[in-house]
Parts: sequence; C-alpha cells; structure tokens
Amino acid sequence: MTNLPEIDANRLWARQTEMDGIGATPGGGIHRLALGEADIEAHRRLNDWARARGWGVLLDDIGNMFLRREGADPSLPPVSSGSHTDSQPMAGRFDGMFGVLAALEALETIDDAGIETRHPIEVAIWNNEEGPRFTPACMGSATYAGVQALEKMLAAEDPDGVTMGQCVADLRAALPDAGRRELGEPFAAFIEAHIEQGITLEGYGNVIGVVTGMQGYRRFRVEVTGQDAHSGTTPRSRRRDAFVAATQMAEALRQAFLDETDTMRFTIGRFEVLPGGISVVPGRVVFTIDMRHPSSETLAAEGDRVVGICKDLKGDCEVSVTEFITSASMEFPEEMRARIEAAATARGFPNQRIYSAASHDARHISRLGPAGMIFIPCWEGISHNEAESATKEDCAAAAQVIADVLIELAV
Amino acid sequence: MTNLPEIDANRLWARQTEMDGIGATPGGGIHRLALGEADIEAHRRLNDWARARGWGVLLDDIGNMFLRREGADPSLPPVSSGSHTDSQPMAGRFDGMFGVLAALEALETIDDAGIETRHPIEVAIWNNEEGPRFTPACMGSATYAGVQALEKMLAAEDPDGVTMGQCVADLRAALPDAGRRELGEPFAAFIEAHIEQGITLEGYGNVIGVVTGMQGYRRFRVEVTGQDAHSGTTPRSRRRDAFVAATQMAEALRQAFLDETDTMRFTIGRFEVLPGGISVVPGRVVFTIDMRHPSSETLAAEGDRVVGICKDLKGDCEVSVTEFITSASMEFPEEMRARIEAAATARGFPNQRIYSAASHDARHISRLGPAGMIFIPCWEGISHNEAESATKEDCAAAAQVIADVLIELAV
Repeated sequence: MTNLPEIDANRLWARQTEMDGIGATPGGGIHRLALGEADIEAHRRLNDWARARGWGVLLDDIGNMFLRREGADPSLPPVSSGSHTDSQPMAGRFDGMFGVLAALEALETIDDAGIETRHPIEVAIWNNEEGPRFTPACMGSATYAGVQALEKMLAAEDPDGVTMGQCVADLRAALPDAGRRELGEPFAAFIEAHIEQGITLEGYGNVIGVVTGMQGYRRFRVEVTGQDAHSGTTPRSRRRDAFVAATQMAEALRQAFLDETDTMRFTIGRFEVLPGGISVVPGRVVFTIDMRHPSSETLAAEGDRVVGICKDLKGDCEVSVTEFITSASMEFPEEMRARIEAAATARGFPNQRIYSAASHDARHISRLGPAGMIFIPCWEGISHNEAESATKEDCAAAAQVIADVLIELAV
Repeated sequence: MTNLPEIDANRLWARQTEMDGIGATPGGGIHRLALGEADIEAHRRLNDWARARGWGVLLDDIGNMFLRREGADPSLPPVSSGSHTDSQPMAGRFDGMFGVLAALEALETIDDAGIETRHPIEVAIWNNEEGPRFTPACMGSATYAGVQALEKMLAAEDPDGVTMGQCVADLRAALPDAGRRELGEPFAAFIEAHIEQGITLEGYGNVIGVVTGMQGYRRFRVEVTGQDAHSGTTPRSRRRDAFVAATQMAEALRQAFLDETDTMRFTIGRFEVLPGGISVVPGRVVFTIDMRHPSSETLAAEGDRVVGICKDLKGDCEVSVTEFITSASMEFPEEMRARIEAAATARGFPNQRIYSAASHDARHISRLGPAGMIFIPCWEGISHNEAESATKEDCAAAAQVIADVLIELAV
C-alpha cells in the first residue's frame, strides 16, 4: 500500500522509558520543571542521540533546542516536529516528552532509510511550555514567534529568584558544542504530537486525533490584602482576614461560571495563604484563575466579570486583579489537517477531527509556517498527574504519521 | 511609699532595641523562628549579658534556657520570670521578647541594688513558643512541665526536615559553657509578662493587666484529597477538585461558628493547595483550624462539629480530620493575681483584671509552682504582625512590677 519506511516502536518505547527515569517521582510520574537539573539532563540525552547520528544541535536565545538533519537545499526552511521536555510539578511521563520522542523516532526512521530530503528536517524542543516554575507558560515558543519579548522573558524569576537567563546559560554550558539558532526563523511546516489530555479519542476508540484548533484562555492573578492578626486575641469584628475574603471570591467565581453544557473550564490552581501560621489570621492571599472556552465571545464576556465579582466580595480587605495572559482561540490550516488525516488513514489508524481544550506550543509556531497537531489517547483523560498514561502502540502510531508527513513535505 | 529599687527604663529599652535588630524584617518587624540563626543569636546575646553579671546560664534537654542569679539558700527552688525569644513569620518585636527583657531588667535591678535573696532568681527563655517552624507551639514549656514527651518533641521536623533535636544541639554548640538543667524542676513562683495582643487595656486606659486565666483551644488538621487534572481539558463533571471541596468546608465552618457575642475565635491560618500549578486542577489541600473559646463546654461542643461539617462537603473527594492539640481553659492562683495587683497599685500603675485570649508558656509552668501573668497594652491590639507596637513606659511598668514581686517572693 505504501513504500514509506516503518518506524521502530521498540526503539521509541525504549527512549520513552529512558526519559521516564529523568526526574522520576516515587509515584511513577515526572517532576521535571523547566531547565531544572532533570530537564537539562533530558536535553543532554537528546543532544547525545542527535550527535550519534551526526546531526546538528542548535540553541536559540530563549533556550529552545533543535536537532537538525540537513537537507539537500540549504536555502529551504526546515520541516519540523516536536514538543517540550519540561513538566508540571509531580506530573505525568507523556505530556510533552512523547511529542519530542515521536519526532525523534520519525527522523531516525528517515535517516535509517537513507532518504535524502530537500528541506532540513528537525526535532524542536520548546523551552518552558508548562510554566509552573517561570511564568508565562509556552515561553519558548511564544518568544521564538515574537509574541513575547526576549529581554522580559530572560528576566522572569522562579520562586527562588533564579532567572530564566541564568537557566538558559546553564543549558548552554551543558551543551558547549551546540550551534546558534536565530529566533523567528520560519518553518516550511511544523507538526506537534501530544497526548489528548481528554477522553474523546478513548471514548470513540480512535488512535489519532487530527487537531482542528485550540480553545482560547484568559489567566488572572488576584491578590487580596487584609491584615495579619493573632488568632486567639483578635475578635471577628476587628479582623481583616484575607483568607475569608479570598475563599468567598473563589466560591462566587465558581458559581458564576457554572454552565449547563460543562464547556467552560474555570480553575483556581494556585492559592497561597500568607503568612501561613496556624495561629495567625492571614493578611494576604494570592491566587490564579485559568479560564478557557472554545468561543472567543463567551471567553471575552465571562472573563470581564472576574474583576467585579472579586471587588464585590472584598469586604474590609483590598483586592487587585491582573490579567497576565490572554490567548484567543485559533485554527490550524486545512492543508495540514488534511495531510495528517490522509497519512493516518493510509496507515489504517482509526482517526477523527478533534478540538484542543489545552494550549500547546504549536499555537505560537503556527505564526511562522503551516502548523498542525496530532493527538493520541491518554488513559481516562488523566494528565498533569503522576497517573498519566499512554500505550506503546498509540505512541508508535503518532510517530509513524509524523514520519510519513515529514517525508511528504521535506523530500 | 516604697523603698524597693527602681528599674532602669532606658536600659530596658536599649536591650529591646538591640534585640529588634536580630531577625529584623524590612517592614520593621521580626522574623525569628524557633532556634533558627536569628533566634540562636538572641540566646547568645542573653548569655553574654548574664555572664557579664557573673550569673549562671543553664540549658535543658528541650532547649529552654535559664539565666540564674544564685540565692543564699541552695535548697530552695527558684523564683522566675520570662517568656520566649522566637516569633511568628514576619511578626512583631514585642511578642515574647518583651517578657524576657522585662525579667532580665528586674534581675539586673535587684543585682544593682545588691539585694541578697534566699531563693535563686531566674530569667526563663522557653523554646519554640510560637510553633510555625516546629509543631506543637509552647513546645519548650510543655516538655519541661511533662505535658509533652521529650523524645517525640526532639524528633519534630521543620518543613525542610531539620529536627528539633538538631536545633537544640546547635543551641548547645553556640553556648558551650552553659550548665545543665533537669526538666521538671519546680519553681517557687513564675511570672510571665507579655503584650496583651488585644484592645482591652488600651480601651480602659490601663497599663497593667493582672491575668486571671487563659482560654482553651482546639486545633485540627484537615486533609482533602481529590485528583490532579489538566485545567484545559478536564470538564467539571470529571473533576475531583480538592480546592473546591476545601473552600466549601472553610466557608461552611466559618458560618457554623459565627456567634452573636463575637467570643468564638475561629481561624484558618494555613491552607496549602497542591500541586499549585496555574493550569492544574488541585488534587490535594491541607488546612489547619485554630478554635478558641473561654468556655470549655462551648469549645467541646462546637469543636465536635468540625468533622461532620467537613465530611458533609467532601463531594467526590476524600477528607480526613485530625485534632492535633487540645488545651482546656485554666486559671492562675489568686495568691499570684493578688500579689501582682498589689505591686502595680503600690506603684500607681492603673491596672485591671483581664482574661487571656491567647495561650502562653505560663499555662504549662503553672503545673510546677504558683504562676501568674502581667499584660501591657499593645497598639490597637495588633500582634503577629510587623506593625505590633508597645511603649517604653508600659514595658518599664511591667519590669518594675516583676522586680517588686520577685523581691517580695525571693528575699
């Protein structure tokens, strides 16, 4: 049916297993925050695999990494695939890493088959996709695409005051032979494979999701300021309890965004109560809101209610609300969707069109060339969790589709 | 009117100012967690002052420290005064430290006057009164009095896994010449001076509060367990959001304990949301409840409702509630109250009887001899806060009353 080369599912799974050991948690997951020790070790491992093939390794100024197999025509932009190696705290093994390794497997398959491409082909590893250590998330791809300013991103600090600039320097020091890549260089095409992080593919029994687009999101930081006070001596009437005000805001916000169709994604994921003593009335709470909806109109209208709800419930405290990141809903070009769909169908992988509820690096990279995404199922939709799981067969299917599409686009 | 010696208000204030520099915060407060670097430095300073007077310095096995001026009759137990040097995080300058320095000033005054006492007189510095670094609070005095077991307390760990045993060894290393004091040695009497941490004295325009007793408290740890999940992809119907369950518990508990008289003190001071990523539905929340009431019956009845309220609101999560410390209401002996009152009145200090809403080391030490407490006003009742403030004159008044009572009891 096809004379395209077959990927090596065992090699792909062995690479996955090796990476599972870098930042492993006792609960069977991964704790590999962006450019921490484990994440840099993962980059070093990828570097070694590329070098063993004789490929180039490039770093850009924000810490994105590119494994590059040159093409016959040096004037052509690369055809690329990839994702990220960093994880959420105490999270899963496949989120990000699977997309990197599927891209690597595709390149190795093409290399083993001795196929000469006109375009260079690449594995892209976008820095700090997750964002818990350095805000904002998708930092590497957004900076590469010009959505974020380099200087500001390099100055971003983690909770210990370490800057992203220092971390990028650490990465460079770990890979002294890496070449340099300019930010913003265009792609002939970019494909990202990722676990779905939902239950749609599993529900329909499909293996490949052809991603049509991504829902938008708005993120807010809410800071409530009251006054620290002694818990034993301070009567209720004299308290300015930031925790009480903040929990009332949190509950009112949750109620406000309940929708019958269960489409809105409203989440308070970070909620810090200070100073945090058992016998101290808290004088300060800082919390984040992550709000997502496929409809840009709904997201705009509902998100605009956040400030009012918080102010109504501040009581004797002060409140400030900052929207620190906003991203509109987006669609991938039909040309890429059709290619991925055709490749999956040609291989006999049951597939479907699917909308992404999560955001991914391909959102930003789509500004620099035609982009597309492939989803595979993950067990019960569980993600950002140590229990996150995907099968060897599904990972292999995605790598096969990437290999087939890369050959089609790059030869 | 009296031929008792006068304390030196300037010396007392100079010592306070010197201690204000140890663990000072940019906001004008103190961050001096139990047996951290700053707290050990405070102990060293007290040691040096005692040594300069030729007094003894003793340490017991749980890190309590005693500055001791010997009496004529070595068979008699000491007459003591003191408090603690440790603070809450980012807290105030007077909580604890003022009581230690008032006791020191009383001893120095007696020493300068060349008064020979039959009983030894002492300044006691109780270890880890506050408890934010090592649980439980009042660890030093409770262990000394046999309310807590030494081995268990030495094994207590701070959030970085450092044990109290290691900290006590650090303190001993910092004071290599300190002698040894056995736990549980009785007192002829013990007086603790402390800021009120409330607004009663300020409201009545009084300088000295003769403390009649202390309200009881119950403390609970509530752990809510759901499941970490991706905030963009996981619909509400599939979430087990520990934050949502925990905030509903917190709000329901607060409502349940609203009393018309504003007597109940219900506080959630620590509330940790895990894993804490902006885009992760939280799978775990741990929070503490501090509940205090002057009536032991009310405290018993209301505290017993906590478990039921939490279980009713757990939704799809799991919840466990642990009561980790309970303390009944207590009263000081009338003999000590009358002595303090008489001394304050003799000096012309406006005074009143007052009930303590906070807990203090004198609670436990009262098991080993007659104990009493003196309160002075603190500005607007603000405490456990960098803005905590007391006047030079009020501090001096307390030191004078202590000196007068110590002479009466020890000579």
